[in-house]
Amino acid sequence: MKSMLMIAALVASVSSVARAEEEDPFADAVEMRHGLMLQMATDLGKVGAMAKGEAPYDQAVAARAAANIAAIASVLSMDQFPAGSEYQASADSYALPAIWTAQDDFLVKIADLNTAAAGFQTAAATDVDALKAGMGALGGACSACHKAYRQPEE
Amino acid sequence: MKSMLMIAALVASVSSVARAEEEDPFADAVEMRHGLMLQMATDLGKVGAMAKGEAPYDQAVAARAAANIAAIASVLSMDQFPAGSEYQASADSYALPAIWTAQDDFLVKIADLNTAAAGFQTAAATDVDALKAGMGALGGACSACHKAYRQPEE
Repeated sequence: MKSMLMIAALVASVSSVARAEEEDPFADAVEMRHGLMLQMATDLGKVGAMAKGEAPYDQAVAARAAANIAAIASVLSMDQFPAGSEYQASADSYALPAIWTAQDDFLVKIADLNTAAAGFQTAAATDVDALKAGMGALGGACSACHKAYRQPEE
Repeated sequence: MKSMLMIAALVASVSSVARAEEEDPFADAVEMRHGLMLQMATDLGKVGAMAKGEAPYDQAVAARAAANIAAIASVLSMDQFPAGSEYQASADSYALPAIWTAQDDFLVKIADLNTAAAGFQTAAATDVDALKAGMGALGGACSACHKAYRQPEE
């Protein structure tokens, strides 16, 4: 029972931080998905720098970044995209309505990202040439989903 | 080369969403860690509801939530906590300065969370009694870190 109360308090305290900021019912969902995408961008930035020769290839760093990308991909689902949290209906949202009208395809895009991220884990841990070669499929999975389901920024 | 440019554009576009909101240099890091914690709270909420009998035990849902918790735990590192992004120095930050002055212990707390999350994956996939029993260690790892390193909300 003690642990139940503790968990409930933890969940409430984390959620209320975002909620207090504004009365947008989707503020938490939008911050959640932005946080996940920012984590992915951080890790993509690390392996991208190695691929471009701006940073030396470091197997441990590359493998960890690739593992992080796969971990974040693995949690993506409709949970981060509650109906109604689309562009212009929710603050800071760039999610296009097609996410919900073409939900099956959206979930296929998420599955494709998971496949690409799994392959990239092997590539990133091999050497810099494999890492470079592996980034195409990974970047392709990112942009396939963004192109169909993310409002371009102005 | 094409994929390099694509990755660079993706990284820039994701990051700029948060950055455009305010000129806080830690806005991205804070949104990143809040997003990760919100994801963890969402999954803890699902298994917590099952543990409290507010939702029926569903093995697939519980296993997925536990896998998500482990995935999020696995990406935690100092990457989400750049020096300077502490409470009152960065907007919306609840991170206490002890994170950086006692960094070794902070990283031990993250490792402890990963251990607890791994154990919880087995428990959550077993049955509701194992799930309930397993929440203590998981909640304990959450609060040990929050107690030492997170500013309580007013």
